[in-house]
Amino acid sequence: MERKRILLTIAYDGTEYSGWQKQKNSTVKTVEAEVERACEKLFQTQDIDVIGASRTDAGVHALGQRAVIEVETSIPTEKIPFAIRSFLPEDIVVQKAEDVPDGFHPRYDCVKKTYCYTFYNHSFANPIVRKNTVFVYEILDILSMKEAAKYLEGKKDFKCFCAAGSSVSSTVRTIFDCHVEKEGHFVKIYITGDGFLYNMVRIIAGTLLEVGKGRKKPNQMEYIIKSRNRNLAGMTAPPQGLTLLEICYDFAEKLLDSD
Amino acid sequence: MERKRILLTIAYDGTEYSGWQKQKNSTVKTVEAEVERACEKLFQTQDIDVIGASRTDAGVHALGQRAVIEVETSIPTEKIPFAIRSFLPEDIVVQKAEDVPDGFHPRYDCVKKTYCYTFYNHSFANPIVRKNTVFVYEILDILSMKEAAKYLEGKKDFKCFCAAGSSVSSTVRTIFDCHVEKEGHFVKIYITGDGFLYNMVRIIAGTLLEVGKGRKKPNQMEYIIKSRNRNLAGMTAPPQGLTLLEICYDFAEKLLDSD
Repeated sequence: MERKRILLTIAYDGTEYSGWQKQKNSTVKTVEAEVERACEKLFQTQDIDVIGASRTDAGVHALGQRAVIEVETSIPTEKIPFAIRSFLPEDIVVQKAEDVPDGFHPRYDCVKKTYCYTFYNHSFANPIVRKNTVFVYEILDILSMKEAAKYLEGKKDFKCFCAAGSSVSSTVRTIFDCHVEKEGHFVKIYITGDGFLYNMVRIIAGTLLEVGKGRKKPNQMEYIIKSRNRNLAGMTAPPQGLTLLEICYDFAEKLLDSD
Repeated sequence: MERKRILLTIAYDGTEYSGWQKQKNSTVKTVEAEVERACEKLFQTQDIDVIGASRTDAGVHALGQRAVIEVETSIPTEKIPFAIRSFLPEDIVVQKAEDVPDGFHPRYDCVKKTYCYTFYNHSFANPIVRKNTVFVYEILDILSMKEAAKYLEGKKDFKCFCAAGSSVSSTVRTIFDCHVEKEGHFVKIYITGDGFLYNMVRIIAGTLLEVGKGRKKPNQMEYIIKSRNRNLAGMTAPPQGLTLLEICYDFAEKLLDSD
């Protein structure tokens, strides 16, 4: 049996979890702990350490979370998603497994991430999607939201969109793309960047929401960003509207090409 | 206080319910019983009888269920959706209330109903939508499904799509429209008719699924319908993919116009 370093792609409904990251308080349910437990059962070892790419908050969902494990196993890597299924609850799905070289790190080697934040914008609430959207009954001005989103693109200091109390060495990040789409009654904010500050996407969603409601003008985004002042941005939008869509690696993309 | 007959439009996530209809076994949770209880609290009476338009099955969802109540109240009808909110669980929403004349019946006066059945068609399951879609990993042939759907339109004997054991005087119904749409990874079957037999939409969804998988040809639909044989149609697709979208009344549509 060979020891392999394996990159997992994981989807989950975050509703029932206190976020991704395992916590010392073991009564708290986390996605990481569930994945670790499932791996330990599948590989019949007590010694699995799951290293996640992104620490999603309580209630936040993922379609493309990534995590690395190291394990000695004779199970072919591409079979792991099927083999692990029966050890996972129905709200967590391992979609893909691929070998990565020693030293590969899911967080440090990430080149870009994409999130999607979804509002349900209609005169009546929709209980069917209440756990993965946020209901807004005021008619949103989508054109203004689209215009405001463009101000976010580029390499900028995004301190205004960073939750208070976060300690990072730099609040400069690069946003490659930010755009707003209306799909039926759903208003979706897609945002791709090289990294995100704590609560950054949810604060951006809350700020674009104010633009959609006409309480802020699109061109105020420039001033808000330059101010580096959290108080000028909008509220932190609720977690259930947020989904981590994709995490990209130069390396993994090359692997995908050869699929 | 005047006694009023009121038509409610109700949306619900059916996941936690044993269907719409109240059951004698009171330990079973039903949507009708929840709505009745909420009405009794709001109107402070023990005497509310909710008459629903459609008896959705366990796990089936609704965006446009309709139900009638009769009550003596000074609450203006249009305020009822807001007033009742705090008496309902978060998975049931009264979206609209409107006065209807004596003698109006939500089931007998219905002129058409629209359902939507949704498959999630991708190589990996999506846990976020697992309770309101049905996962299919084989790539579906949408063009064939669209073609097959057209055979359903018209006034026909749909006995082949009626669950065994159902006793109705006639199995003839008129389907005004049936079409299939692909929206991202979602494949949606929309169907509008003057009425539906027991499990009819779920059996149609199961049959169109077989067409999508290439196990049945679109033009076989004609033969299946003519056979009046339930065994020639596909399986009954699972309940969680089904949503009751809309119920129309000549009367209510006139009311809506004057909103």
